[in-house]
Amino acid sequence: MVGREVGIIAAGHTKFGNLGRVTSRELITAAATEALEMAQLDKDSIDAVYAGLLSPDIFEHQMHAAPGIPDYLGMKNTPSTRLEAACASGGLALMHGAIGIASGLYDTVLSVGAEKMTNLPTSHVTEALAMCADDIYEVASGITFPGAFAMMARAHEHEYGTNAEMRAAVAVKNHKHALENELAQFQKEITIEKAMNSLMIADPLTLYDCSPITDGAAALIMVPWEVAKKHDGPKMKIRSFAQASDTMSLHDRPDLTGFTTTKVAARKAYDRAGLQPKDIDFVEVHDCFTIAEIMAIEDLGFFEKGEGGKAALNGDTYRDGYLPVNVSGGLKAKGHPIGATGVSQAVEIFKQLNDMAGPRQLNDVEIGMTQNLGGSGSTIVCHIFERGD
Amino acid sequence: MVGREVGIIAAGHTKFGNLGRVTSRELITAAATEALEMAQLDKDSIDAVYAGLLSPDIFEHQMHAAPGIPDYLGMKNTPSTRLEAACASGGLALMHGAIGIASGLYDTVLSVGAEKMTNLPTSHVTEALAMCADDIYEVASGITFPGAFAMMARAHEHEYGTNAEMRAAVAVKNHKHALENELAQFQKEITIEKAMNSLMIADPLTLYDCSPITDGAAALIMVPWEVAKKHDGPKMKIRSFAQASDTMSLHDRPDLTGFTTTKVAARKAYDRAGLQPKDIDFVEVHDCFTIAEIMAIEDLGFFEKGEGGKAALNGDTYRDGYLPVNVSGGLKAKGHPIGATGVSQAVEIFKQLNDMAGPRQLNDVEIGMTQNLGGSGSTIVCHIFERGD
Repeated sequence: MVGREVGIIAAGHTKFGNLGRVTSRELITAAATEALEMAQLDKDSIDAVYAGLLSPDIFEHQMHAAPGIPDYLGMKNTPSTRLEAACASGGLALMHGAIGIASGLYDTVLSVGAEKMTNLPTSHVTEALAMCADDIYEVASGITFPGAFAMMARAHEHEYGTNAEMRAAVAVKNHKHALENELAQFQKEITIEKAMNSLMIADPLTLYDCSPITDGAAALIMVPWEVAKKHDGPKMKIRSFAQASDTMSLHDRPDLTGFTTTKVAARKAYDRAGLQPKDIDFVEVHDCFTIAEIMAIEDLGFFEKGEGGKAALNGDTYRDGYLPVNVSGGLKAKGHPIGATGVSQAVEIFKQLNDMAGPRQLNDVEIGMTQNLGGSGSTIVCHIFERGD
Repeated sequence: MVGREVGIIAAGHTKFGNLGRVTSRELITAAATEALEMAQLDKDSIDAVYAGLLSPDIFEHQMHAAPGIPDYLGMKNTPSTRLEAACASGGLALMHGAIGIASGLYDTVLSVGAEKMTNLPTSHVTEALAMCADDIYEVASGITFPGAFAMMARAHEHEYGTNAEMRAAVAVKNHKHALENELAQFQKEITIEKAMNSLMIADPLTLYDCSPITDGAAALIMVPWEVAKKHDGPKMKIRSFAQASDTMSLHDRPDLTGFTTTKVAARKAYDRAGLQPKDIDFVEVHDCFTIAEIMAIEDLGFFEKGEGGKAALNGDTYRDGYLPVNVSGGLKAKGHPIGATGVSQAVEIFKQLNDMAGPRQLNDVEIGMTQNLGGSGSTIVCHIFERGD
């Protein structure tokens, strides 16, 4: 689409969950080492590192975290850059690694994402995450993200009748999918009744409508596609990517039932790839809350507006359905270590497109897509990937 | 050097200082608006925004600050990305804007940098900035940056005899230069005696060895050089850029009298531009402490190792000297709003290369360079620029 075409030749991914006494730097080191081994590359062949990290500042009392990555990996003077866009930080680390290759500046890039969140008590994490909303107009009024997405759920329910059962069905599906992902935070099946009757967090969202607090890291190694296609090992091609932003505050938007940013970024990603929604075989979307998955699959063009709520309930978005959505378990059940998520989504696509997904392997998939969201959708980044063999 | 060549066609810069009740978002809006007016561009012609911000998290209780920039500027869905690399955040915003153009992805990019630091008391700011050092090995031992640079000053003094008078001469020079910069935080002349006798901050560094706490923002607009050179207005060409990283902790480095990162990044920048240190007419370097300027002008290849201490004392780095260094007043006197600094340095080069620098205008300058440092030199980014007409 721009400059040189880009391929991915390796992935690494830690267990997601409460990982105890470990730093994000150590988690990244583990994921990156796995990727380097898969790529059969020495660490010194990496030209640049891009890291998605929401706030090592607040979670780990560490700013300027990026140089710590090549430091721990034993690299020499390798440029390392942190990108932060709330929960879309990882997607931007991936995208900017690809831009670095596309421009010709770098030939081999390591893109990573991580977060170490469980150092803080849950209420502190929720408060910290709320700082990704508009501090002046929203946070000062007491809003946190469960509240913001609760308003969206109410709007979607009011407009389209998307009810609690439909939202719960998303959680049930993603928990079901995560049963086949040993790196997922949760590997337990739940029922619609259990989800609907769980603790009320922000009316109408209950506990099982919300993604958890998670530690973890993910890593990908990128090279020009011309190099990747000759590489003896797994590979996939980045067909396109696109990023969009929106107002910080919800009150500045005409509609709360979807994200303009998802629509804009997806349209650009489709156009740049020369593809349509119907060409996408499976997708990893940003289900920070169940309603977010519903809005995503509508805004990405897979389901008509207002029809997304029925998708999981009808089985359409299950692994064996019309369009597999979040076969990894999604943020809901795989877990959501903020900065890692955008990279982790692409790792899932990479595994699926290289028949490396084990018990959750999809059949005959050629094209996969990711949608990574930051804040209340103030940042969206979409990627489209194609099987490399 | 890579992909498309990149030019800069406009700059904006707020007053630096204690700016009272204002947010970094408002400061960026002001600087960006000035740049848009200079470029005679409508805001909607901007394809992407790159923002250098160290920690709106800690200074302003605002994470995910990047989308707030197109939001306040009234742009529609323009991608906006925050980069953080301690005090080198601005330099990376500039560099990644240029990579975006070079790759062909974007045609017009706004790169900005800002920090609103004076919300916190001085001691809190020093503590917050210390989080850019290694939290585990350095901060836990009580180090802050005045202490880190004091150790470097001691090492340089021990090895090369670089004494307090030489350091003070850097502060005297930069204060003198800032007399001609109305946007500078300090416009007052000081003497070597005054600097040497000022409050001891971290032995041997006194108050006047340290850059101040500052609010401010700076902005640049970039387009492909093919477009810039036909542009009816000011312009300059980005000849090259390079970034390097080093260990987080000082104890992991073999030498404290210079930065390997500066040497590595400068060498790459020179090579990519096909230039040598002797081709550089003037330079803006990262004088967060006086010793940092001394090390920078050595590591960049302008002075022999160990000779940098004499440069300001001899008059070599004054506006009318052998190599004008920090004619803007530098971080020391112009001020150092962390995320803004890397962009502000390039704004000074832009003004000088377009004869827009007013009373501090240099004569016959064709090539300018910037060196922007993060942490204890764990990140360095260098840019080389060329006159456009």
